[in-house]
Amino acid sequence: MLEGRATLPRVGMVGGGQLSRMTHQAGIALGVSLQVLADATHDSAAQVAHGVTVGDHRRLADLRQFARSVDVVTFDHEHVPGEHLRALAAEGFRLAPGPEALAHAQDKLLMRRRLAALGLPQPAFAEVTGGDDVARFAETHGWPVVAKAIRGGYDGKGVWVLDGPAAVAELLATGTRVYVERLVPLRRELAAQVARSPHGQAVAYPVVETVQVDGVCREVLAPAPGLADDDAVAAQRLALRVAGELGVVGMLAVELFDAGDEGLLVNELAMRPHNSGHWTIEGARTSQFEQHLRAVLDLPLGSPRPTAPYAVMANVLGGDDDRVPDRFLHVMAHDPEVKVHLYGKQVRPGRKVGHVTALGDDLDTVRARARHAAEYLRSGVEL
Amino acid sequence: MLEGRATLPRVGMVGGGQLSRMTHQAGIALGVSLQVLADATHDSAAQVAHGVTVGDHRRLADLRQFARSVDVVTFDHEHVPGEHLRALAAEGFRLAPGPEALAHAQDKLLMRRRLAALGLPQPAFAEVTGGDDVARFAETHGWPVVAKAIRGGYDGKGVWVLDGPAAVAELLATGTRVYVERLVPLRRELAAQVARSPHGQAVAYPVVETVQVDGVCREVLAPAPGLADDDAVAAQRLALRVAGELGVVGMLAVELFDAGDEGLLVNELAMRPHNSGHWTIEGARTSQFEQHLRAVLDLPLGSPRPTAPYAVMANVLGGDDDRVPDRFLHVMAHDPEVKVHLYGKQVRPGRKVGHVTALGDDLDTVRARARHAAEYLRSGVEL
Repeated sequence: MLEGRATLPRVGMVGGGQLSRMTHQAGIALGVSLQVLADATHDSAAQVAHGVTVGDHRRLADLRQFARSVDVVTFDHEHVPGEHLRALAAEGFRLAPGPEALAHAQDKLLMRRRLAALGLPQPAFAEVTGGDDVARFAETHGWPVVAKAIRGGYDGKGVWVLDGPAAVAELLATGTRVYVERLVPLRRELAAQVARSPHGQAVAYPVVETVQVDGVCREVLAPAPGLADDDAVAAQRLALRVAGELGVVGMLAVELFDAGDEGLLVNELAMRPHNSGHWTIEGARTSQFEQHLRAVLDLPLGSPRPTAPYAVMANVLGGDDDRVPDRFLHVMAHDPEVKVHLYGKQVRPGRKVGHVTALGDDLDTVRARARHAAEYLRSGVEL
Repeated sequence: MLEGRATLPRVGMVGGGQLSRMTHQAGIALGVSLQVLADATHDSAAQVAHGVTVGDHRRLADLRQFARSVDVVTFDHEHVPGEHLRALAAEGFRLAPGPEALAHAQDKLLMRRRLAALGLPQPAFAEVTGGDDVARFAETHGWPVVAKAIRGGYDGKGVWVLDGPAAVAELLATGTRVYVERLVPLRRELAAQVARSPHGQAVAYPVVETVQVDGVCREVLAPAPGLADDDAVAAQRLALRVAGELGVVGMLAVELFDAGDEGLLVNELAMRPHNSGHWTIEGARTSQFEQHLRAVLDLPLGSPRPTAPYAVMANVLGGDDDRVPDRFLHVMAHDPEVKVHLYGKQVRPGRKVGHVTALGDDLDTVRARARHAAEYLRSGVEL
């Protein structure tokens, strides 16, 4: 693909969030200056990237103009309307991943149907058009029932646990398009990340445990402690199969429920760098951000090998004030080995404004270090 | 310093080369968007940084305008005239390092005198105003004699080995201001890097061996193989002492001659991230670029601890064509663990256009991997 080229293709990323920011950071080493389509000049990536276009990812004209300025377009979120993606692809623009693949990360019901057709493990689910459908589903699978927005959910938004017909009626009255799933008795949540390039090369990262609080990822433990080798390999194979069957290009995260005796069940898909892979910046030989770019550029993929026995990533959530950078002093002095990543975002309570990563040989120690740093950055209070 | 601040101070770096590029990359994690004063829009750092000012680092007005736009100014080279630095400091701008310290990296004769006053080990040297002075120096120390440009030398430029009076006369006729040094019988060259912050905290990196070819650094072996612990500690102490005595802020590299029985002698000083420290990006818990920013911001310094038993960095020099990115395909496929860093610079024969780093347990293997990648990127030929 690069025969005779003195420069790499130009890569544009739709979205100016922290994923785009960290992808730009990784691109610098590859000789790539990521072009960013941001909502606003103060977006996380727009503060640090050289090539920033401000535009609306929901407007085809803005997307088209951006696509013209680069050689390949990739995404830091799933919110570009599918019809725009298909229009751009039809006009000959290179999108990575393409519209067909990305649709499965945008439309959860489509994803469920596709996984069912592939025979992959997932919770029982059903399309619902009214309360009667939900009631029928509950007759088979019992209350409560989980309802999920077919489009647009993230970080716990767009998921409802419904305990009976009244709750169903209330949700349906809002007009949100939902489908329903069985509430799986969870032991914990896992994530399997893989990368796939256009010519079909793929690599799998170690499977991680994601610790969720109120639907928001709080910590990631890499590798997932106590996961049997067979289960880890099965999860990696599952993710590789999804990537191949759906024709994913770039990073794919498969969020999994560890349902104990019921095994591992697919929760969601994300076709981009993902919060569950931030630990790879220091914790793997090739970070998910570099890997995503390598895949998008159809360069040979990098080694996903861990650099330490354990890595723990903890998200820094916004607290009641905006003095996060202020608290560097203590966190850095307390632990000169912890790695802090700030996203340049305005602090709001509960918002992901950064993350920290600690590495080491002993999981408990590593986890305590990451927690301390994240909690102190949030609150200024010693745990 | 950061009491009550919701944002970090703004950092500006004078110079748009690869050191500035990689400092920007490191700053992204710290929530810093490095502001760059570049010579031209196509400069290495100017391609990837958000805040780029094009201006002339030799013009006080350009420097002053740039300094006004940030809270603290640091440097990716030593070429800002000393009188401008002193003028800016007198006007109240914060410079890190300050003019007094930086003068010793700008003026080699001043550096030699200061080190002599401190009683630190270095080659015999003398100021010379004419051929007679050189001849007198050679009477004591023998021919050949090394002449060095007092200002402006880099990468082997500004150093002459003079074998007798005719060569001396020829050099002096060019009008270059030089001083002379004894030609030290070298076993090898080493470098000791330390960081120092304004409040006096300091850390020392492992001492490395720098392999020079024609005065240009070709490889860095970290840590320096076979260096006795006592010698390594002595070199670190020497560098820490220089940093403290000169009041350095940020990274300091002390280039050393390993003169065998004569011990370690100081060759040169650099007060900025340095080619001998590129291995720290993957090879140390805190890269020299992050460390430089932490020091400049007076944040607690990070751990300089290595992440692997050996790291080898090899510079990618420009070859006879400009197809370096093209050769990613082979290099990345050949070794999925090697880390490639391209600087976005136009390829010219012998120019540093990137570097590669390999990590591992066995020095010979690691060195062979780094060499293969660097050589292939240069030439497209298998070693």
